[in-house]
Amino acid sequence: MKSRREGDRIFIRLERGDDVHVSLAAAAEEHGVGGGWFTGIGAARDVELGYYDLERRDYDRTAIEGEVEITPATGSLGVLDGKPFVHLHAVVSDNRCIPRAGHLFRAVTAATLEFVLIVGERPIERTRDEETGLNLWRV
Amino acid sequence: MKSRREGDRIFIRLERGDDVHVSLAAAAEEHGVGGGWFTGIGAARDVELGYYDLERRDYDRTAIEGEVEITPATGSLGVLDGKPFVHLHAVVSDNRCIPRAGHLFRAVTAATLEFVLIVGERPIERTRDEETGLNLWRV
Amino acid sequence: MKSRREGDRIFIRLERGDDVHVSLAAAAEEHGVGGGWFTGIGAARDVELGYYDLERRDYDRTAIEGEVEITPATGSLGVLDGKPFVHLHAVVSDNRCIPRAGHLFRAVTAATLEFVLIVGERPIERTRDEETGLNLWRV
Repeated sequence: MKSRREGDRIFIRLERGDDVHVSLAAAAEEHGVGGGWFTGIGAARDVELGYYDLERRDYDRTAIEGEVEITPATGSLGVLDGKPFVHLHAVVSDNRCIPRAGHLFRAVTAATLEFVLIVGERPIERTRDEETGLNLWRV
Repeated sequence: MKSRREGDRIFIRLERGDDVHVSLAAAAEEHGVGGGWFTGIGAARDVELGYYDLERRDYDRTAIEGEVEITPATGSLGVLDGKPFVHLHAVVSDNRCIPRAGHLFRAVTAATLEFVLIVGERPIERTRDEETGLNLWRV
Repeated sequence: MKSRREGDRIFIRLERGDDVHVSLAAAAEEHGVGGGWFTGIGAARDVELGYYDLERRDYDRTAIEGEVEITPATGSLGVLDGKPFVHLHAVVSDNRCIPRAGHLFRAVTAATLEFVLIVGERPIERTRDEETGLNLWRV
């Protein structure tokens, strides 16, 4: 992972084999930021997507086969239990350009991934919400 | 709807039951901004998507059943007839991560929705364009 | 193509018949910027999408019929051989809101396209990477 900050924008490039969530959290930590918004494109493998079933208060998980284009992955940076927390949703597409989409549980960088992180001035905490069973972004 | 402005970024969280367009327009009004760009993820219900048929100069509308992930919704903030106007397109996905996409007519927040609004310095007017039949964003 | 810069944000509107990549590169050149991030929505025709096959080090290409909604197109601005280089991925959808997605090779503006470009302070070079066969964004 390589990153560079210019004002309130951080440009990030992930390299082959980089775990997306781990690397983006590392970029946030490196630059000392705890609130913001990510958007990225590129290619990934070992993708797992999800759908939150509000009634069951749990995710349905879908493993995606092979390498896919990320078109895009986007979401928020917050802080949970004192650590950067990366919450992404993604659209991914296969070699016939057929997409799947959902909450992004996991992805590993294939050829490359390019991201921008727009940072805020203060951390944005995530805390437990009993009604939904989720850790909500406390803007 | 909760929002906080930090410089030219406004972070917004919609809560269960919040209408997406109404709430984002309210956030813009609250902070006195009339030009910018929204990006958001989360979950929604009562989603209606559209496709603009340029020949007919009208939309084909598709109602989406049930709760869906928003992966993402993104688009512009402008001003139409003196009021904030929110123009979003969205990708939504179901419990098998199968997506649908198009112009977002309507969505109501399910578990949560997280948005960022990047604001400009001046309002961006939308005005009628006779050729397309649309109110265009007059950048 | 019309554009206006406000701080580190450039708002761009493409008009019927504008080639997306050519117009966005022209906007970057007009404002003298060589690094940043684009996000846009609207409608397009003559869309060609791609999937990068890392093993073959070449793209599979898919031509998309007719006019489609862009929901969204997003990606990076960099500089290749001294010229602005626009790298976009896109999700596009048809009149039943069925999406396709991938690397965006080409698109021509239909009714309208609205974009924001978040600009960095310095150009971001793209240079050849022998391992992947791609020109990588050297953040």
